[in-house]
Amino acid sequence: MERTYVCEIMNNIESTILVRGWVHKIHDLGKITFVQLRDKTGIVQLVIQKELEQSLRLEMCIEVIGEKALNQKATLGVELLVKDLKVLGKTYYDVLPFEINNQKVTATLETQLDYRSISLRRPKTRSVFKIQEEIVEAFRGFLRELRFSEIHTPKIISSSTEGGSEMFTVNYFEKRTFLAQSPQFYKQMMVGAGFEKVFEIGAAYRAELHNTWRHLNEYISLDVEMGFIKDEFDLMDLEEGLLNHVFAHLNKTCATELALFNKILPESIKIPRIPLSEVQELLLKEFGKRSPAGNIDAEGEVILSKYIKEVYNSDFVFLTKYPISKRPMYTMPDEELTDMTKSFDLIYKGLEITTGGQRIHDYEMLKANIIKFNLKPEDFGFYLDSFKFGMPPHGGFAIGLERLTMKILDLENIREATLLPRDMKRLEP
Amino acid sequence: MERTYVCEIMNNIESTILVRGWVHKIHDLGKITFVQLRDKTGIVQLVIQKELEQSLRLEMCIEVIGEKALNQKATLGVELLVKDLKVLGKTYYDVLPFEINNQKVTATLETQLDYRSISLRRPKTRSVFKIQEEIVEAFRGFLRELRFSEIHTPKIISSSTEGGSEMFTVNYFEKRTFLAQSPQFYKQMMVGAGFEKVFEIGAAYRAELHNTWRHLNEYISLDVEMGFIKDEFDLMDLEEGLLNHVFAHLNKTCATELALFNKILPESIKIPRIPLSEVQELLLKEFGKRSPAGNIDAEGEVILSKYIKEVYNSDFVFLTKYPISKRPMYTMPDEELTDMTKSFDLIYKGLEITTGGQRIHDYEMLKANIIKFNLKPEDFGFYLDSFKFGMPPHGGFAIGLERLTMKILDLENIREATLLPRDMKRLEP
Repeated sequence: MERTYVCEIMNNIESTILVRGWVHKIHDLGKITFVQLRDKTGIVQLVIQKELEQSLRLEMCIEVIGEKALNQKATLGVELLVKDLKVLGKTYYDVLPFEINNQKVTATLETQLDYRSISLRRPKTRSVFKIQEEIVEAFRGFLRELRFSEIHTPKIISSSTEGGSEMFTVNYFEKRTFLAQSPQFYKQMMVGAGFEKVFEIGAAYRAELHNTWRHLNEYISLDVEMGFIKDEFDLMDLEEGLLNHVFAHLNKTCATELALFNKILPESIKIPRIPLSEVQELLLKEFGKRSPAGNIDAEGEVILSKYIKEVYNSDFVFLTKYPISKRPMYTMPDEELTDMTKSFDLIYKGLEITTGGQRIHDYEMLKANIIKFNLKPEDFGFYLDSFKFGMPPHGGFAIGLERLTMKILDLENIREATLLPRDMKRLEP
Repeated sequence: MERTYVCEIMNNIESTILVRGWVHKIHDLGKITFVQLRDKTGIVQLVIQKELEQSLRLEMCIEVIGEKALNQKATLGVELLVKDLKVLGKTYYDVLPFEINNQKVTATLETQLDYRSISLRRPKTRSVFKIQEEIVEAFRGFLRELRFSEIHTPKIISSSTEGGSEMFTVNYFEKRTFLAQSPQFYKQMMVGAGFEKVFEIGAAYRAELHNTWRHLNEYISLDVEMGFIKDEFDLMDLEEGLLNHVFAHLNKTCATELALFNKILPESIKIPRIPLSEVQELLLKEFGKRSPAGNIDAEGEVILSKYIKEVYNSDFVFLTKYPISKRPMYTMPDEELTDMTKSFDLIYKGLEITTGGQRIHDYEMLKANIIKFNLKPEDFGFYLDSFKFGMPPHGGFAIGLERLTMKILDLENIREATLLPRDMKRLEP
């Protein structure tokens, strides 16, 4: 007999079906036992006669053949009267590390991360990653539709020219190499190599000495780079369209999962775009908040987001026109505003989730800028060289996948939006 | 004016259109110049009057407004009479490193890899990666349709228990860590964590001291793991279905690119499944070829593939039932064949592209097997622990993306199927 997934039970016309999954809850009434069976797609109630019961334990893997019976009180509106039961995966514990069949979470986040293969079985925890998967799917679908190509670039790189000190080193056949902080140079190169528009969904590594609620040392970066743009506003248009598509896709594909977090995502978002200097002034005037030179700090991001929500009814805000001194050497200077660049950050609910901007595409201009930044052109060998052969105007941005997931669901810690987090202290599981 | 991609020119009802791209070929006839303009989607002929010509050079990025004119001799059947021309990206070279607008490749593979942003502009080279992108898309689409979930697992791992000596080490905040050889442990854990069926498209690292036509030190692994299977034949069924889908998808989406390689992929493949011991016997009897204990070698793979092609008319062959001693400790032993496992390899045109098999899912059995392999259960902490809480029967496989791409197109070197290869000597670009 073919397996039926729980979500298909109501639509299956057969009266006797086979289901598989984990024992989520047991309610022993003596002669009969009610068992909640959990599979990837949902939970169904089983009614099991004593003689079939086989001393079930929570989280055993079982296979069951049962007859559908209407029961208004069961979540699905239907339960299964079990005719046959097989144990597929035994358990070997005294007590579970923590309960996973209760609404209330009893374990600390650290304990949940220690037992990741248990904590992920909680439907609400699982749903974070269903939503994350669909964010990725929407990101990819939207960009492919616009003729972007997906690329995979190497993470072992030979020089630390882009990243400086905050990089992990790899011993590569006795050579000292690095883990890439971003695919920045490669995605630009691929635009120039005729791909025109590219994206990458890949790991990025930051050896930052921060152990906070919003930092990871290995994370998934949703990277975008686009050729033949007019200016940085093309990129903001693209990202705004992308986020609208992600939200619409999540509302469509993850309604159940979003409901567990009491979320319905806005149907149409329009993101205000404000120059950084105006934001700094506003923070000072309205909130007495001083900002560091050429940026705003984490506290400023939170204050600003509250203000933007009140005035513009938007969870997002683009900060534009960052100063040259605060952006990488490849950032396109602004023709109209002295000392400023055609770059932007995107703040979402008080947290930066994107940095982006137009890049310099002219070889001589890039070389001159590298020198202006007190760097050596010869250190940028293949990268700089690739600008000699006809590079279109281009730019791009990157979204931190875990940060976006965390903020969509208003999670408190980025580790809750990470399958298997890596931070300064955690390397396992 | 909105940009028109070359592939859209014929369907665009406007007579005057705007196109962008690179100068692919220049044919100067004095009063007029014929220029082939190449964009991401194809090549179109431009007819440019002297006064507009602006000393064009090969590979410049330009934007052109032109009027469509029928011309049977032009590849598209239509050419553009240029009304306006803008240079978007200048060139800064004396001579191009090699010609890219000829059928014939004049540069060595090493030179092509050195100048990756040039060599990828050759339409035939570019098409390798269009095909690779669609392989990934087909892989993902097929599995998502079957309720597989896409996961992203960390590549920095704390122990080398799975891989042994052939791993790269990373200095992680003064701790010695490793780059993952495969997501094996994590994909199994996620099956147990309720994801049931997972796949990952991610980097895998092998510090192998091989510099051959078929080895990479960083490559993309298409990993699959599936819960609630009956045996390893479920996995072979899955992979066969997957490859059929990939081929159908490529025939549909990459007809032009495949044609550059004179390829039409078979519409339906049925892959023979032969126990390893029978293959070894066959190689010895029919070809006088001795095989190493418990495997066949690279030469054996080539001889076997030729034989299979002749006898079964198949480019693929599954070798099944590898001995316990040659497979990892987590491989499920065969109940019927002493000392054998429920595992398989897939050989495609003389090259192994997949290793797979059913895994042990019972905690006590796995622990006993670890000891049998002279390993220490305590070294497998979180992995072994995750088997205590109800693990379904499961198994999986992995496909090397670059190997699959190489063999589909009959390329001679795996580096031709790699955007930016990493090998013992190459770390750039």
